[in-house]
Amino acid sequence: MGQNLAQKIISQHLVAGKMVPGEEVAIRIDQTLTQDATGTMAYLQLEAMGIPRVRTKLSVSYVDHNTLQTGFENADDHLFLQSIAAKYGIIFSRPGNGICHQVHLERFAVPGTTLLGADSHTPTAGGVGALAIGAGGLDVAVAMAGGPFYFNMPVVIRVNLHGRLSPWVSAKDIILEVLRRLTVKGGVGKIIEYGGDGVATLSVPERATITNMGAELGATTSIFPSDEITRAFLAAQGRAADWVELLPDADATYEQIIDIDLGNLEPLVARPHMPDNVATVREVGPIKVNQVAIGSCTNSSYADLMRVAAILKGKRVHPDVSLVIAPGSRQVFRMLADNGALADLVTAGARILECACGPCIGMGQAPPSGGVSVRTFNRNFQGRSGTADALVYLASPEVAAATAINGYLSDPRELGDPINITLPASFPVDDGMFIFPPEDGSQVEIRRGPNIKPLPLPQPPDPVIEAPVILKTGDNITTDHISPAGAKYLPLRSNIPALAEHAFEGVDPTFARRAREAGQGIIVGGQNYGQGSSREHAALCPMYLGIKAVIAKSFARIHRSNLVNFGILPLTFADPADYDRIAAGDKLAIDLRSGLGQEEIAVTNVTRGFTFKVRHGLSPRQQTIILAGGLLNYTRQQAKGN
Amino acid sequence: MGQNLAQKIISQHLVAGKMVPGEEVAIRIDQTLTQDATGTMAYLQLEAMGIPRVRTKLSVSYVDHNTLQTGFENADDHLFLQSIAAKYGIIFSRPGNGICHQVHLERFAVPGTTLLGADSHTPTAGGVGALAIGAGGLDVAVAMAGGPFYFNMPVVIRVNLHGRLSPWVSAKDIILEVLRRLTVKGGVGKIIEYGGDGVATLSVPERATITNMGAELGATTSIFPSDEITRAFLAAQGRAADWVELLPDADATYEQIIDIDLGNLEPLVARPHMPDNVATVREVGPIKVNQVAIGSCTNSSYADLMRVAAILKGKRVHPDVSLVIAPGSRQVFRMLADNGALADLVTAGARILECACGPCIGMGQAPPSGGVSVRTFNRNFQGRSGTADALVYLASPEVAAATAINGYLSDPRELGDPINITLPASFPVDDGMFIFPPEDGSQVEIRRGPNIKPLPLPQPPDPVIEAPVILKTGDNITTDHISPAGAKYLPLRSNIPALAEHAFEGVDPTFARRAREAGQGIIVGGQNYGQGSSREHAALCPMYLGIKAVIAKSFARIHRSNLVNFGILPLTFADPADYDRIAAGDKLAIDLRSGLGQEEIAVTNVTRGFTFKVRHGLSPRQQTIILAGGLLNYTRQQAKGN
Repeated sequence: MGQNLAQKIISQHLVAGKMVPGEEVAIRIDQTLTQDATGTMAYLQLEAMGIPRVRTKLSVSYVDHNTLQTGFENADDHLFLQSIAAKYGIIFSRPGNGICHQVHLERFAVPGTTLLGADSHTPTAGGVGALAIGAGGLDVAVAMAGGPFYFNMPVVIRVNLHGRLSPWVSAKDIILEVLRRLTVKGGVGKIIEYGGDGVATLSVPERATITNMGAELGATTSIFPSDEITRAFLAAQGRAADWVELLPDADATYEQIIDIDLGNLEPLVARPHMPDNVATVREVGPIKVNQVAIGSCTNSSYADLMRVAAILKGKRVHPDVSLVIAPGSRQVFRMLADNGALADLVTAGARILECACGPCIGMGQAPPSGGVSVRTFNRNFQGRSGTADALVYLASPEVAAATAINGYLSDPRELGDPINITLPASFPVDDGMFIFPPEDGSQVEIRRGPNIKPLPLPQPPDPVIEAPVILKTGDNITTDHISPAGAKYLPLRSNIPALAEHAFEGVDPTFARRAREAGQGIIVGGQNYGQGSSREHAALCPMYLGIKAVIAKSFARIHRSNLVNFGILPLTFADPADYDRIAAGDKLAIDLRSGLGQEEIAVTNVTRGFTFKVRHGLSPRQQTIILAGGLLNYTRQQAKGN
Repeated sequence: MGQNLAQKIISQHLVAGKMVPGEEVAIRIDQTLTQDATGTMAYLQLEAMGIPRVRTKLSVSYVDHNTLQTGFENADDHLFLQSIAAKYGIIFSRPGNGICHQVHLERFAVPGTTLLGADSHTPTAGGVGALAIGAGGLDVAVAMAGGPFYFNMPVVIRVNLHGRLSPWVSAKDIILEVLRRLTVKGGVGKIIEYGGDGVATLSVPERATITNMGAELGATTSIFPSDEITRAFLAAQGRAADWVELLPDADATYEQIIDIDLGNLEPLVARPHMPDNVATVREVGPIKVNQVAIGSCTNSSYADLMRVAAILKGKRVHPDVSLVIAPGSRQVFRMLADNGALADLVTAGARILECACGPCIGMGQAPPSGGVSVRTFNRNFQGRSGTADALVYLASPEVAAATAINGYLSDPRELGDPINITLPASFPVDDGMFIFPPEDGSQVEIRRGPNIKPLPLPQPPDPVIEAPVILKTGDNITTDHISPAGAKYLPLRSNIPALAEHAFEGVDPTFARRAREAGQGIIVGGQNYGQGSSREHAALCPMYLGIKAVIAKSFARIHRSNLVNFGILPLTFADPADYDRIAAGDKLAIDLRSGLGQEEIAVTNVTRGFTFKVRHGLSPRQQTIILAGGLLNYTRQQAKGN
């Protein structure tokens, strides 16, 4: 039987397990990437593993999140990352070099390889046909140490793109349409594979916009075939040798096939506060806008910003709109500076920010109170912008640029003749802002600022976990809810004791205090608990505060793995109706005396006097990890055993 | 008898008083400027005055400080400023348009006029021969309302520049030399007037670098003549009509004459933590550097950044250095984008920041812990960078660029052939990022975010102020010490109750709590109390916390005025030896029962049982202001009386 793209790459990298959907498989990881907001933890964990040098083909440490540097913490983190990269054989991408996913796509991503990244938008590299998966920092550290990456084999679904986009409709609208159809939990346990004749009409950066924002579906990853367009892109980046053709077999099968007629799409937006709350620009209408923000790993490529520059050229940003633009990489920035497009943007009134994640991760450019912001980014979770009551709409660069001129949400089709941007036959390649590691890093001294605190480790669970429900949440809780993003919190990412004080701050500011006071606790959640960013801080902080288990209706993939990695039991209700029978404050008793061998575990609601069943769904390996007190303890035990 | 430049402009604008050094004079103000960190207070005060429209020839409201926007506060402030500008007939310079002083020099500053700015670096406009003075926001509000500006007539000293700078020595080195000779309190009560044949060798932006950083001398202002070079600069800005020749009379007299032979200067730096701690680069030697920051109102002009770009072209920023560059204005940014210099900077590895004050005011780019930062800025006060233990050196763009390449503090004379940058005959003028006010602003609705709190007002003083000494400080306390700058605090500038909690935080974190608990209090200071920034928050916050008087050895001019404006008595020791007889916690009784008619006031140290004398040095007008409970109460009473 023929294989699809995902099966081809997984089978070529398979280390353990069978490629049966739902069963745990382990794959060899060729490349890793980290960014600075997740990276410090990942490297503290790598250090704890005691290997002298990474064992991947390529590992890159990017600095793109914490670039505002409002205190010493960020710069200290950068020095830590730079020194540890030199010591362990990792390429260091200096601040100012750009956003990890954009830069990795330009310079390193290779069709047919596996990439594990400590960032949920790692699937961006699926735009060139890499199998690129986001994971917690500890999983990435294990991969750097040469260990395989374990995950449950997803089902593979196919999205067939037919025809060609109409003028002023863009790749962003394709992924917004997929989000509209599948929702933010529609991709859980799935790999999204793109095919159809429409693929040939999309450039690699356009494909990368789509695979990037596949993260918002909850998908394990998204992937495009590697074809002639991929070859041309890699050749233009001076990487013709990295190209291999990668197509699904003609008789490949898929769990589901979705058809999208590109010609029928029109400009879309995701309305507040979820990326799947999608409507057409026409439907939403000409709402007044305070801010337009262009950039992020989703839409900051050369062609994206050239289109914006062409729209803005000779025009002026509306007096009531603040337009901020952050180029995705130094390569993009330099090209715009070279060809006059940057001058056009500045002349039109754009505020040019450093090439970094910036406002997408809440690092600056918070909108005014109650303000409306139209952003080319990938997430519009409430408060992520830095302004709790801001209304954030996600849109294409074309919609954003038209809106910036008009001052209200605008359909770019009103702009007239379409703009045609072709990618250059040769990009100006300059790897001068990477620091390549020395052959021997053993003498490198690690720089460790005072905000970089040792990694806390969990304890193995008690035979009976008896603890109160500290918090009961609704559906679709994001890792932003659990450990907030933004300029106030990101500098604490290397300091779990300090960061933990802000856990669930936007949901219940008393959470940290109450959890600490209780000594140990349980969280009850709804559907899709832990969606969004891959940050393991969303597991580390609750763990640090004594959370022993999360009982939810369902989990997002990366967060569930992070919970396991840090020794927190991720449990699902056998009967979702039991969710309604538990209140915050109830004391529960989770009975682990029989171990985790059975599928179901009994939980007693001590307060209300009834017992219900939960499922752990843990693989034998994960069971051992939980009982060992987390993945790092497990890895150490394994190392001792060997 | 002939007049010097200062006397000419003051006499032409004199409203009250005699031009006798030390006596209070009042002058008519032609232009005002504010920036966003001081502007919200200034405009709240303007509102409170109840006039329908500003009465100056020109008033401009710039946004350049609070542009990081890490929360809703900044963007709310921007909307407030934009709406109030429209209502009151003020030009609004949008965020992204550049740093107030650089932009004002380019577009508005006029020789022979008076400019009052709510920013201590307002003297920048002295580079074109304007009499440009920094003041507290309330003084600027009064000027906008048509009132005169009161200050003690300074003495005028002359700095004669002879000859021509050697290659690689720059205007920054001239002002650092003046600082070396005069110190940070050497300019108090003085206007610094530049003359000599060397003036003709300096462009307007170079002159502006010198007048700008004259603020660090404590000078009332600094001024250059308006000559052919001034004419050419204004003509290149499309403002030939603004030019008038302004030269001192041949027989003008000066209190003091200082001679500087430009050819003898060499590259200088100001070492931590004061701008007058000056040494040659050679003396300091090749210390390792973590960060180089280029920009600020001192050194971010076209020629400054072109020189940096020329030095960096084809080279690479050292791997251990983070180089950040913030162009001073949108005009500068656009010129660099147009002519390829920006591409050179990006290629060399510079991190390009938005054109704004940025790291100079601690808004981002804090160095690492204990890090060394070489900056083209004007202040290196401890902690102002955002990192308490960072070591900040102030230097020219040439020194900064050479240092960025080498990784250690470097003398640019090692770079070889000098770089010659000529100013264009015509700058690309584009005022599109100014919003000019409507003819009738009466219907404009003011936007007022939740962080914009009403202005607190002082009470008239008790006949006997009996209160404890909450804090006793050493010499050279800056307004940064009193009300800190930086990303954490600037968003609170419109919210005195919140900001006051951080008063003196770096000096004594218990200050705010203790002052509040005491109900009312007194501060005892040393020499040059209140130097640095013009922020009236350094008076407002102590006032809000109950501080009734500051007894110091001497005061910086702007801060002393701000204390008076907000009803705090600025008192100096009749015998400085009494400073040593007072300890923090002592209860003092300041006897005002005889009013302020006498020069000296008796203060009893109740705790230690002795009495000493202090002087207030207040003009009759200022006495009335103090007894009225501050300038705003006084202005209201005057308005009622009229």
